[in-house]
Amino acid sequence: MTPILHEYAPSGNCYKIRLAAALTGTAIERRSYDIIAGRRGRRRSSPTSTPMGIPVLQLGERFLPESNAATFYLADGTALVPSDPFDRADMLRWMFWEQYNHEPNIATVRFWMGWVGEGNLDDLQRALLPGKRAAGVAALKLMDEHLASRAWFVGDAPSVADICLYAYTHVAEEGGFVLEPFPAVRAWIARVEGLKGYIPITA
Amino acid sequence: MTPILHEYAPSGNCYKIRLAAALTGTAIERRSYDIIAGRRGRRRSSPTSTPMGIPVLQLGERFLPESNAATFYLADGTALVPSDPFDRADMLRWMFWEQYNHEPNIATVRFWMGWVGEGNLDDLQRALLPGKRAAGVAALKLMDEHLASRAWFVGDAPSVADICLYAYTHVAEEGGFVLEPFPAVRAWIARVEGLKGYIPITA
Repeated sequence: MTPILHEYAPSGNCYKIRLAAALTGTAIERRSYDIIAGRRGRRRSSPTSTPMGIPVLQLGERFLPESNAATFYLADGTALVPSDPFDRADMLRWMFWEQYNHEPNIATVRFWMGWVGEGNLDDLQRALLPGKRAAGVAALKLMDEHLASRAWFVGDAPSVADICLYAYTHVAEEGGFVLEPFPAVRAWIARVEGLKGYIPITA
Repeated sequence: MTPILHEYAPSGNCYKIRLAAALTGTAIERRSYDIIAGRRGRRRSSPTSTPMGIPVLQLGERFLPESNAATFYLADGTALVPSDPFDRADMLRWMFWEQYNHEPNIATVRFWMGWVGEGNLDDLQRALLPGKRAAGVAALKLMDEHLASRAWFVGDAPSVADICLYAYTHVAEEGGFVLEPFPAVRAWIARVEGLKGYIPITA
């Protein structure tokens, strides 16, 4: 049973799942949705979403939404999920942190800048933008401090936490964030890109 | 080595960890922080936070922030973490959903109403409030639809997902949400409260 990824390819949340599949050598089938067709008033060439949103990983008749859960599913049972109980929970700690402190800032600002367009933001989005920029920079700073003394987020090997955090970090500059002041983050990005089986977000 | 929970007791995020400890029969030591003393200008009787925020679960010299990760840690290896790979990922799916779609709305509105006070909200908070109320109601509705045909969030047994979602759902009315229209949620709350070892948030 080949897992089916229902996705919008430029989404970092969708890319996490493709990257986990590539790093674990798991074949997946991809089905694309044009999530922004409706927003831009263009004619839709494909549906914009699934009933459970995007991404969803389909496994036979069952569906797994939430990017970090689907990424975990593909990596469960491999070395990308630590066997040590503390490390396993610490991996999840970074994945929850990613969804609470990183994605709502770095991914949202990237989407607003690169897809919605700064001129098309509504008043509430415009009011939120400075706080999201600041919180995104704070997230990058915290990552840089953590990585200053270590190669990977958890223990001494790559884990699902690295996959989930890499997805939007390495394209943060598309949202106007600057990675130059974060050398440990940049070195870690290069390490992720050197992993056997790595594929870029454009693949 | 007894785990130490650094906490503010009325926080649902802190309560998740206490509830997991109670349900798994794990002894923990509790250390309290008065996270709102600074906000209200009262004299502090205890520090307001730890360097990693609140809650943090301390295990010897190691620290585990992120409530859902700490809750998972205490339950890992018990029946509260499903052994089936899909169910395990599906449990995480609901836990990520809780942190992205439920906690930022239901918990934040509860905190704003019950701790900050509606009259003390700043302009941005006031602008966000209607959207957070609507998103909180949507989260309760989605939970109610999911629970209409099942007793627990994942598979046919309680899991960490139920603990994490119960924490802020059962006190949602403190934020002005109304649970009456969600009978499946109310029945599930009663089931959680019937679990062997259950303790209330005030314990």
